[in-house]
Parts: sequence; structure tokens; C-alpha cells
Amino acid sequence: MPQPNTKTRHRAVEVAQGRAPADLLLTNVRLVNTLTAEIYPAQIVIAGELVAAVVGPNERASAREVVDGSGAYALPGLVDSHLHIESSMVLPPAFAEAVVPRGVLTVVADPHEIANVMGLPGVRLMIEAARNLPLDVYFQAPSCVPATALETAGAEIGPGEIRALLSWDEILALGEVMDFNAVLSQEGRAADVLAEAVRRGAVVEGHAPNLTGGDLAAYVTAGVNSDHTFVTPPLAAERLRSGVTLQLQLKSLAPETLREAAARARSLNLCLVTDDVMPDDLVTTGHLDHVFRTAVGMGLDPVEAVRAVTLAPARRMRLFDRGAIAPGLLAHIVLTRDLRDFRPELVFYGGRLVAREGELLTPLPDYRPPQEALRTVRVPAPGPERFRIPTPGTPANGTAAVRVMAMRSDSTYTGADTARIPVRGGYLDWSSTDLCLAAVFERHGRAGAVGYGFVRGALQRGAVAMTWAHDSHNLLVCGRTPEEMALAARWVVERGGGMAAVRGAEVLGSVRLPVAGIVSDRPVREVARELAGFRRALLTLGFEHRSPVMALGVLTLPVSPALKLTDRGLVDVNAGAIVPLFVEE
Amino acid sequence: MPQPNTKTRHRAVEVAQGRAPADLLLTNVRLVNTLTAEIYPAQIVIAGELVAAVVGPNERASAREVVDGSGAYALPGLVDSHLHIESSMVLPPAFAEAVVPRGVLTVVADPHEIANVMGLPGVRLMIEAARNLPLDVYFQAPSCVPATALETAGAEIGPGEIRALLSWDEILALGEVMDFNAVLSQEGRAADVLAEAVRRGAVVEGHAPNLTGGDLAAYVTAGVNSDHTFVTPPLAAERLRSGVTLQLQLKSLAPETLREAAARARSLNLCLVTDDVMPDDLVTTGHLDHVFRTAVGMGLDPVEAVRAVTLAPARRMRLFDRGAIAPGLLAHIVLTRDLRDFRPELVFYGGRLVAREGELLTPLPDYRPPQEALRTVRVPAPGPERFRIPTPGTPANGTAAVRVMAMRSDSTYTGADTARIPVRGGYLDWSSTDLCLAAVFERHGRAGAVGYGFVRGALQRGAVAMTWAHDSHNLLVCGRTPEEMALAARWVVERGGGMAAVRGAEVLGSVRLPVAGIVSDRPVREVARELAGFRRALLTLGFEHRSPVMALGVLTLPVSPALKLTDRGLVDVNAGAIVPLFVEE
Repeated sequence: MPQPNTKTRHRAVEVAQGRAPADLLLTNVRLVNTLTAEIYPAQIVIAGELVAAVVGPNERASAREVVDGSGAYALPGLVDSHLHIESSMVLPPAFAEAVVPRGVLTVVADPHEIANVMGLPGVRLMIEAARNLPLDVYFQAPSCVPATALETAGAEIGPGEIRALLSWDEILALGEVMDFNAVLSQEGRAADVLAEAVRRGAVVEGHAPNLTGGDLAAYVTAGVNSDHTFVTPPLAAERLRSGVTLQLQLKSLAPETLREAAARARSLNLCLVTDDVMPDDLVTTGHLDHVFRTAVGMGLDPVEAVRAVTLAPARRMRLFDRGAIAPGLLAHIVLTRDLRDFRPELVFYGGRLVAREGELLTPLPDYRPPQEALRTVRVPAPGPERFRIPTPGTPANGTAAVRVMAMRSDSTYTGADTARIPVRGGYLDWSSTDLCLAAVFERHGRAGAVGYGFVRGALQRGAVAMTWAHDSHNLLVCGRTPEEMALAARWVVERGGGMAAVRGAEVLGSVRLPVAGIVSDRPVREVARELAGFRRALLTLGFEHRSPVMALGVLTLPVSPALKLTDRGLVDVNAGAIVPLFVEE
Repeated sequence: MPQPNTKTRHRAVEVAQGRAPADLLLTNVRLVNTLTAEIYPAQIVIAGELVAAVVGPNERASAREVVDGSGAYALPGLVDSHLHIESSMVLPPAFAEAVVPRGVLTVVADPHEIANVMGLPGVRLMIEAARNLPLDVYFQAPSCVPATALETAGAEIGPGEIRALLSWDEILALGEVMDFNAVLSQEGRAADVLAEAVRRGAVVEGHAPNLTGGDLAAYVTAGVNSDHTFVTPPLAAERLRSGVTLQLQLKSLAPETLREAAARARSLNLCLVTDDVMPDDLVTTGHLDHVFRTAVGMGLDPVEAVRAVTLAPARRMRLFDRGAIAPGLLAHIVLTRDLRDFRPELVFYGGRLVAREGELLTPLPDYRPPQEALRTVRVPAPGPERFRIPTPGTPANGTAAVRVMAMRSDSTYTGADTARIPVRGGYLDWSSTDLCLAAVFERHGRAGAVGYGFVRGALQRGAVAMTWAHDSHNLLVCGRTPEEMALAARWVVERGGGMAAVRGAEVLGSVRLPVAGIVSDRPVREVARELAGFRRALLTLGFEHRSPVMALGVLTLPVSPALKLTDRGLVDVNAGAIVPLFVEE
């Protein structure tokens, strides 16, 4: 949303004084004042995009249009300060269609997924795709492209690119600094990028899983001051005390954590955020509205919850024109009957009614991505032979000890484990075990590297392949047999990106993601339908997990504890180093 | 304080991790955490200018120097977000000498007094004079030079100058927009200046005495969002609800107002500020520390009071590097035994001990103002004949009705009154009444205008003259006889500015203010001594008032209710218009 021009503001000043009629008067609402944490009956006087005044329920005000709120709560449009639109696997217009009726009117997105594939043109694509929506889409400059030096992405973003990005109007912050090892050691690209952003006084988003004590202090001292990773109650308290804005996403919500956080959220330092919402979750359970409902359901005071999705994230991102319903601020307003079971009835974007009862009322622009965004899977489909693992230096028959990524059904973090695998004719006979082989193929047309690792607790049968694999989005293939893995990989490569789940010769479920290999160019409901089918296929393949797609998609994320896999090999995340597949014996 | 460089920050990151010894360790303190509103035992680890970490009381940390806090409270250095250094009648170094031992380490000053005399060179003078102090002096761009179109100042600052000023590193905000009539009518220089600042997204300081309802909403909608003028409890509540940061100064402090404000200060929207502190008050009662003690004494929770003088004003001014004691923030730290009777024991500026037990420990730079700043009183001394008022159009003998500024002994606001004065030989025989004549002579070498008015409730005898007369700082002369007025005026004019109180042929008290006619170039104690003598002289002249010097000094301020006097004549402040001396009958 561009700044209202001087003329608009002038007219709002006249309207406030009653010297001109309002464009819209919202009568009979219970105003949730996020500034004072109060709720009281009011009328909202709107001129152009702005709130011109808030007046008492019985005051006279002349207006061209009057909407009776019928006693509904009026709260500011929701603001999500930490999310990746690409996680919803759609482009910004389709994303807006899904979130605006849910009351989300401002997002500050870190486009680091597409940046890892396409670099700055990817960021530019997202900015272009986000224009002229009934949703204010701001961005963060992706700080970790690639996330670490232990993987090959489609692009590198260094201090020079960051300087450029931070000068763009649409960019409000440095995106999450995931390579905390680089920050702590103060070596490497992520450290240089951070220093550049700090020199420029930028807001810097964090990613500090389990960091505590001196390490957390060091990370914050370096200039990072938010965290949206999973926190326990003591980690939450430590963050708030250290000047870190706590961004709680769904997985961090727990009654005790919310109690601990709310008791210390005295300086607008508590935000609710979504981070990653999959398309099917988005369609069925919702977005920031769902996080809000969940937090309130767990005991967070509704007014505090409203503040955590409006004023706190707006101030965090230095958006001083929103986050409250007050004179001179944008008229981004949501009416709801119930603060606990929050369902937006009417949604006003800059004083304009844009959604009613969950349905968007305004047409969306038709955005077509450029051709180069549709040709990003630059790797030949790997044949079955690419999934045979030789065992040089060990007897041709016997066993070999390998490192294993141990999946947990309730977390996307893995354990670092080991296993012993039979060796047959100089190759690992891994299909005879209960492990899956995972392989990550560099797919950006660069070095063509491939990394191998084993996984426990994933598929019991079949194979999956996906180019949606955080954060470098290389081609991840994971399965129980070389043939099924090869089939899944071919399906994905031939379609320019996506996900496929294979059993025998059949593709059980698939998602087409042709934009940068990670995003669809279709409406969210279609993608959600495909993804739901893919999830069912994963169940058929015996993979039971609270968040199965994400668990697979971050198997390749070398900043997510504890053992992960990139095209360069297995990564010991806490040590920040590549470790061999075979364990020294 | 310049941003700590990358090297300093790097070392602090090492210190936080225990990889290098701290420069300073403050042990055994009770940390006042302004972010979470908690107090707990801690040690503060300092590297260079920065806090590197806050650790538990029993943790080991190596340091080059250890200071035992002996159980004192540790709080962030105080931040004053609204003040005019010129009100203390000294230059920034002398000001720092007075306030740093009181724990004030950051001020955001509006230099509008000196700007009204000297324009941008005056602002530049203040910036130069504030370099290399153990006090961070930031500035605001004076928005109302002159305060209104109803007076003649030494300079005009328009939208072009504002654009320039806002681009200077030292300038954090647009200074108080005093001409609220211009804002509401959206006409005139102040409205244009405000629009320019709003277009640039600047913080805008307000001045909204008694504004309420639609007028307040209009003023806020126009882009102003703080107020430091006197407020009652309902005005305080209305401001907080409207998104206005409430800046309470001494005169606004009252138990009920503090209760009302504290209940709604949920978004760092409550600051304590000083606005104007006279040199003798500064020396004897203090500065922001005194406002803090007073507020706590009236029942404001001490931790909330600390937040209102640290984090809240820092965030208001978008100084994200201070306002709390937390990793990565500036080590501006104050130790005190008592939060209620707040007296700083030790004061650390960027990790350096700069004051102990009320005494500054570091030498201050010797600043010499440029010659042009010492030659600003450009008016001939008026003789007694300038204080004779002809009555054209009325009978040569009889009476005439005139407007009267009615002083109140407890407020700097005046009432708009009338009186009937005998006419003798075509002139007002005002000395035979109980009124004082006041005259304001333009003294900047411009139009040479003079305005006349009468005052009730000021001097009972004698006369005063002062070039320290808000905001245009013309020559104000006020007294009971033309001869005494002429003598007082001559004293001031001949010394290049200041204040003088005269009885008969004797100067009873005086203050020399040669810099721009409003500021001394000597230490604050000397100025305080002179000012105390001037106050005693005012008492001798029969002027009893809670704030006698300020009451006289704002007799010329055409934005302070209700009837005031400028070189253009009497001003009806609420109407924003010049009104005649004589009342139509």
C-alpha cells in the first residue's frame, strides 16, 4: 500500500473535524484498542485509506456510507512479521486470496526459498507478483542464500546484494540469519551479510534454535534480535529478557510457554507468526488466524493475542502506519463476532470492504511468471544406478557402519544416529534394512554434486522425490528401492519441479510446482488438493509424522538440528560441518 | 555516540561467548529489565561501548576490570525525548556537566529557541557544541520558526529547510508542531512543514494544549503523535487511546493522571520528559531524575517509571540501540541504591565510568561559540517615550477599555480579560492602575515592529526586560513605569541579551545571556546563581508565581493560551489571530 498522499491526508483532517463527510462510518463496534489494551464501544470514522477519528457510540458523524457493526469486535488487520509465502506453494495473488478473508492484511515475507533458486530475480518476481493486491506484502532481504556454505544453491547473495536489497522500498528487514555458526565464529558470508545490515541499522530477523547462554548473547550482540524457532518456556523467557522479539509459531504454542511469554511481553516483544503454512493447511485450518485461535485457546488473553498479531509485529517491522485503529493510521480493519473463535465477518483494506464471511470480494490481478522462472530444474533425471552406494575400503561382503538421520514423528529435527548395513559385492545392500536411502542432487545447473545419507523413520516402502527441499531446493530423492527412487525423480524433473510419491511403477500422489521448482502458478485450492493427495500417498508408503511433507522438505536444511543432508553430503548441524557417510571404526 | 564499529561488535561477540575477557564486569547488581518489566540479580558483561551479555549472579566471567555493584539497581541511562537545552540557558557542554551525573545519557533536543534567533546556523551551533560529550545529544528539526505567523522571529524555517534538516544524522524528528491552528486549517507554513515531514516518514513531536475530540483526531491524523503539554486525566486517556505518545512533564504530574496513564501505557506510549528546566532548578532539584522521583513519589510503579525514562523514549525516537540493558545495546548504565529516591551512584556512558555520586569524572571539551552568535540583539535601547500609549479616537481625558492578559499564579496560561484605564492628555495613564504595560520589540534587525499589551497579576512595582522570551525571543519589557522599563531594556540591550529586573534606578537582579540573547557561555552554576538573584528581584517587585521567569518568558508565546503578546500585537491564541489593544465599545 503506498503512503496516502497529502491530499488524502488533508481530507481526513477535514473529516476528523466534521468539516467534510466521512467516506465510511463503522457504527456499533467494540473497538479493540491495541495501544491501551482496552475494549470499548465506538464508531470508526474513515476517510480514504485512513482512519480519521474514533468517536463514541452516540456521537453524530456524517458519512457517505454507514456499516452497522452490530456489536462486533473491530480489530486492526492482522500483520504477519515472519513467513515464507513459498511455503504455501502459490504466488502472492493466490496467497492473498487465501489469507485476506482470514483478516491478514500485511505480511513481511522472507522470499529466501525462491532466492535460493533464482537469486535477486526471484525476489523481484515476488515483489512484482505482489502488486495491486488487497494485502500489503513487504519483504525481507534473504540473508542466507545459501543457508550455509555446506550446500549448493541456485544463487549466492552476499553483502553487495544485501546493500542493494535493503535500499528497495519493499524490503523492511534482513531475513532470518540461519547460519548461526557463521555468526558465532564471525566467519563466512552470513557474518559479512549481517555486519552490512547492522551497519545500515536494519531490522534483523533471527533463527536461533536452542541457542542459549553465551551463544544466544553473542548472536544477539552480533545484531540479530528476533527468533521464531521452537522454544520451551525457559528459552522463551531468556529471549524476551535478552531483547529478542519472540515470534511464536504453531509448533511453539503451549500453555506454559504462552504464560511465560505473556508475563514478560511488556514491550511489544511478543508476536505470533506463521513461518511456513502448507497450502492444504492454509485452506482447511487457516493462517495467522489459526495461530491466533490456537494461542487464545491455550489461555493467552485475547487482547494480548490481538496485540501479538497487530501492533507488536507492525512495530517490530517499523510499520508505524498500522497495528492499531487510531486517527491517521491505515483503515485496515477486521470485524469479528468472537475474539476467541476468531472468524472475520467483514474485512476492510484501507477503508475498502474486501472480504465478507470468508470470501474475497475483489478481483485479483492475473500475474504470469516470466519464462526463466519456469525452467529452473537443470539436472538430468537420475537413473537407478545413482542410488547404488559403493563401499570402497571395506570387504566386498560384510557390514559397514553409516550415519543415520533419525526422524521423530513429532518434530522436524532429526537425531544423529548410526546403523550397520550389509555389504554385497562392494555395495551397500541398504534395501534389505529398514532404512531409506536419501540423495540430494544439485539441480541448478551448477556443480552437479550429489550427497547421500540414510534415514530412519521415514518411508516403509516406495519412494519420494521433491525439488521443494529447504533451503537450496535441490532434488531430494528418498526411498526404499533404486527403481522407485528413479521413477519419482523422473516425474519431478520432467515437470520442471514438484513432488512425487511412488510405489512400484505407480505415482500415488504428486504436486506440480513449476515456478522455480517450488511454487505453483495455480489457485491455492488446486495445490491444496494435490498436496492432500501427496500426503495420503506418504501414509500409504508408511510415513507417519505430525508434519510429513515439511519433515521431508527440511531433511536437506543444514541449519535444522541435528543431522541433515545436502548435495555436499551429511551435515552435523551443531558442529556446522560436513561429516562422512561412513562411520570410522 | 557514533555506531560501534564492526570491530568493536565482533569483539563483543567473542566476549559474549567467553572467548575473550570483558573490558568491564558489573557484578552484584539488581538488573531493572525494561523489556520484561522485571528486576533480578545479575552481572553485566561489557565489551567496548556495548553490553555483550547479562549473566546470572554466580556465573564465572573473566574481565579486565570488575566493579562490584554491592546490590545496587542497574538501569539503562535515562533518555529525555522532549526538551529544549536553551531553557537551561547554557550550552550543551555545561548542560552535560549538570545532567550526566543525574543519569541522563541521551537527549533529543528541539533547538527551536536558538533557531528562532539564528535559523539553521543556530541548529548547527548546538550540534557542534554537543560533540564529544559523555551525553548523546540528538536533535529535532524545529517545525515552528516562528511559532506562528503572528510574530517576527530572527529566521523562518520552511519545508525546504526541514527537508535539509531531516537528512542530517543528528536529527531524529520534526520538533513540536506548535501552530495547531495551522494544522487544523491546513494552511500556512506549519502545515506545509508538517506535510513534508510526514511524506518523509519522520517522527513528529506535538504540542496540543487542551485539544480534544475531533480537533485532537484531526491533529493526529495530520501526522503528529506525541504531546507534552499539560494534561488532565481524561486528556491523558484520550491521547493514549488515539495513538499519541504521552510525554508527561513536571506540571502534568498528579497521582490521578499517573494512574490513568499507567493503566493505559501498554505500548511504550508513556514517557516522562523535562521540556524546559531552568538553570537554578537544574542545579538544585535536578532534571529528568527529578521528574522520575516526583512521578514515583506520586505512586507510579518504579519499574514503569524507569521504562518511561528509558525504553519508551528511546523507542519513540527510534533509537533501537538503547533503553534497556541487553546484549548488543550500548552500555549506558546507571547504578542507584534506591529506585524511589533515585540518586545515581555510578554512571557508565558506553561502558566508561563518567560520574560518581553526583560528580562528573571526565573533562569536557571547551566550546567557544562563533562571533555572530554573540551579536544578535539588533535593536536600539527603547527610551521611556516608547512606553507611552496614545489613545487616538477617544477623548483626550476620560477612560479607554483595553484587553488584559490576566496572569494566574499557578499556570503559564493567561486569561483574556479587559480593563478600563484613565486617559490623560490623549495618553493612557496606565501607571495609575494596578496593571503593568508590556511591550515586545522585534530585536532581530528586521521590521522593527513593536506590540503593546497590559498585564494583570505581574509586577506590583519596577520593571523587567528580557530577550529570553518564547519563541521569537524578541525584547520583552514589562513594568509599572516608563522610566524603569527603559532602564531594564537598556541593561539587556547593552549586554547583548539577558534579563534584568529594575526598581527605581537600580538593577536588582540580572542574567547575562550573550549567546543568541538566550543562552550563557558560562557554567550552569554561575547562571543558576544569577537566575536565583533575578527571581529574588521579581519577588521584591511583588511578582509571586509558581514559575515567575517562565510565566514572563511565555507571555510572548502565541501558542500558549489564551491572550499573549508579540511584536505584532496581542494574540487571541484560540482564534489564532491578532486582536486590537483597545476593545471596541
